[in-house]
Amino acid sequence: MLVQKYKEMLSAKSVIRELSEFATARGAEIGYENVFDYSLGNPSVPVPRELTDVMVHMLREEDPMTLHGYSPSLGIPSVREAIAAYLAKRTGMPYRKEHIFMASGAAGALAHAFRLVTQRGDEILTFAPFFPEYHPYVDLTGAVLKVVPPDTEGFQIHFEAFEKMLSPKTMAVLINTPNNPTGVVYSAATLRKLAEILKRKSEEYGHDIYLISDEPYREILFTGVEDNWVSSFYDNTIMCYSYSKSLSFPGERIGYVAVSPFCRDAEDMVQMCGQISRGIGHNCPPSLIQLAIAKVQGKTADLSVYETNMNILYKELTALGFTCVKPGGTFYIFPKALEEDAKVFCKKALQYDLVLVPGDTFGCPGYFRMAYCIDTKKVERSLQALRKFVKTEYGA
Amino acid sequence: MLVQKYKEMLSAKSVIRELSEFATARGAEIGYENVFDYSLGNPSVPVPRELTDVMVHMLREEDPMTLHGYSPSLGIPSVREAIAAYLAKRTGMPYRKEHIFMASGAAGALAHAFRLVTQRGDEILTFAPFFPEYHPYVDLTGAVLKVVPPDTEGFQIHFEAFEKMLSPKTMAVLINTPNNPTGVVYSAATLRKLAEILKRKSEEYGHDIYLISDEPYREILFTGVEDNWVSSFYDNTIMCYSYSKSLSFPGERIGYVAVSPFCRDAEDMVQMCGQISRGIGHNCPPSLIQLAIAKVQGKTADLSVYETNMNILYKELTALGFTCVKPGGTFYIFPKALEEDAKVFCKKALQYDLVLVPGDTFGCPGYFRMAYCIDTKKVERSLQALRKFVKTEYGA
Repeated sequence: MLVQKYKEMLSAKSVIRELSEFATARGAEIGYENVFDYSLGNPSVPVPRELTDVMVHMLREEDPMTLHGYSPSLGIPSVREAIAAYLAKRTGMPYRKEHIFMASGAAGALAHAFRLVTQRGDEILTFAPFFPEYHPYVDLTGAVLKVVPPDTEGFQIHFEAFEKMLSPKTMAVLINTPNNPTGVVYSAATLRKLAEILKRKSEEYGHDIYLISDEPYREILFTGVEDNWVSSFYDNTIMCYSYSKSLSFPGERIGYVAVSPFCRDAEDMVQMCGQISRGIGHNCPPSLIQLAIAKVQGKTADLSVYETNMNILYKELTALGFTCVKPGGTFYIFPKALEEDAKVFCKKALQYDLVLVPGDTFGCPGYFRMAYCIDTKKVERSLQALRKFVKTEYGA
Repeated sequence: MLVQKYKEMLSAKSVIRELSEFATARGAEIGYENVFDYSLGNPSVPVPRELTDVMVHMLREEDPMTLHGYSPSLGIPSVREAIAAYLAKRTGMPYRKEHIFMASGAAGALAHAFRLVTQRGDEILTFAPFFPEYHPYVDLTGAVLKVVPPDTEGFQIHFEAFEKMLSPKTMAVLINTPNNPTGVVYSAATLRKLAEILKRKSEEYGHDIYLISDEPYREILFTGVEDNWVSSFYDNTIMCYSYSKSLSFPGERIGYVAVSPFCRDAEDMVQMCGQISRGIGHNCPPSLIQLAIAKVQGKTADLSVYETNMNILYKELTALGFTCVKPGGTFYIFPKALEEDAKVFCKKALQYDLVLVPGDTFGCPGYFRMAYCIDTKKVERSLQALRKFVKTEYGA
């Protein structure tokens, strides 16, 4: 018998995928350059040239037996060392290779983090709006994802609601800053207050509450925004990182778990990740890709286009009267829709070839997401459509 | 709280790893070329030159946005098509891309296969001797792995024991042919009889029993051995394949699930794999690696060294009086030890710098495994040590 829960999932429709399919179909009609497709969070700049050169060089020069050989289950030691050295230098925290577990992108890293600290029935709290894949990621482990309602003022944390939802069943809190879908970066004040509550509640409940910090957008930070290192605020932090966005390398599925050096049992936790892997068929990211990213620590693709696009859109959206928190990073912006039902709003926008994603998808109805990881010229051309849409439909 | 089951796994020792560590340490003393290390199943020949060239060419010529872009969750369509076309041509079975799910090696493929057809408490039967990682692979899903005792005559299937162990809880049967650790290939007669029983029992129990066929050694088949396509014997077969051995590419973690075109709900099953991925953080093998293997379908590394080594060892072992089934493929051989306790036997062998793995590890005490994926010259040099060992310890 096929397992029904997976079969049933097949009939669930992904709003983002449907919108993206619409964009592709419409593109075939009128030319994709005329569809203002803000639906997908796909990096839009090439990998750094250096990364390509490193891979070609290794393929040409290295012994293929080593280059393509089995990686130990925690990752290739020299790669873990290079990452730890980079993190230590950047943060001043005593990261060593023993704190690093190589994973297949942030999804792979999160799959290990959740299993490290939760069992069937345990709860993980996260904050709306949130990346919708968190639901299958957590639910299919047997743990339960609970979503704290949003702080729509600034898309920081609704602490009052959060404290009410914490319970002895809470084993972990999952955050994502810079955030998908809002683009907002948590302030030091937010992180300090979060840490204070987690410490207090850990003592009250008599067990550690872990902070799982999903940081794929860490390197896409805009001018003047404070660069807060989440793991420096709270000892029991498990950071999940991916190079997908920073290196424009999403298909190569490379990232890591970095357990804070101050986390209780940090080194055991990394070793435990190696055991978790055996149960989920993970068995390391590919050797070639591990070895390549080790050589470009601290490098990124040219990410400046995202800030350029953000500034253009933020200016236009606020001028058109949208309520909108200014993003501090990522390639997303999350304005309030001009009518209560964002699904209706986004549907109307399609008539103007504007592909926007309703906030309902992210647990925050009434808002919509624009993923501006697209060409700046297209962003500029989209402004006219945006103005026409707003004026025609909402008389603004 | 950290999850205890993973913490407890840390203290379990891997016999193979310990032996391999011994070999490395001993190598530091006397030179690794003098340690006859038969412990590890690591390919010992380079990838085909063509595969390297394909990767370099793509890195140099292809648009990096496409080359390193997100792969759809079932795998890149053109890659799935290339594999299906190859399988269809090779077998005459109507494989299409809808039957192929790209996975991170055989471990990733098996992680999906187990979850497709079993839930907590369901049983999977496999046959001793078997790859010991099957235990964590299955146990950590919540299903139960039951091991049918070996047919030590020919290392085919002990059908009498098998039939006794089948029950309504049996949802899948897991086979591995060519086999690790015996090197034996299941005959057509074995596969026919297995299929007949599975069909009969599926009807009796009122639910399908799936055959999960783990085939990483499929391409390492020796002269004159029948090349049986497992999926052609039984409709409800889920094949799990890896390129690790055939292309000498183990670190790159690439393989696939191929659901038999004749399997009930075959296409749904592949779609379901995409859902399972969301729960285990799988998210596709890397794009570059997928695209590369698509271009070398039907190619392999030069695998002839394994047959050469097998012939040398088989001749010597039988001459020395070992009871030994002649391998039909892989790079393993599994002779009977010269005393009852193979652990003691293998410990004694270490004094002659022969690193052999006791069969207990594979659920088959009294035997030992030699992984002869090493240089032929070393195999030849090891014969003297083997003779000395046998003569001194067992007076043969």
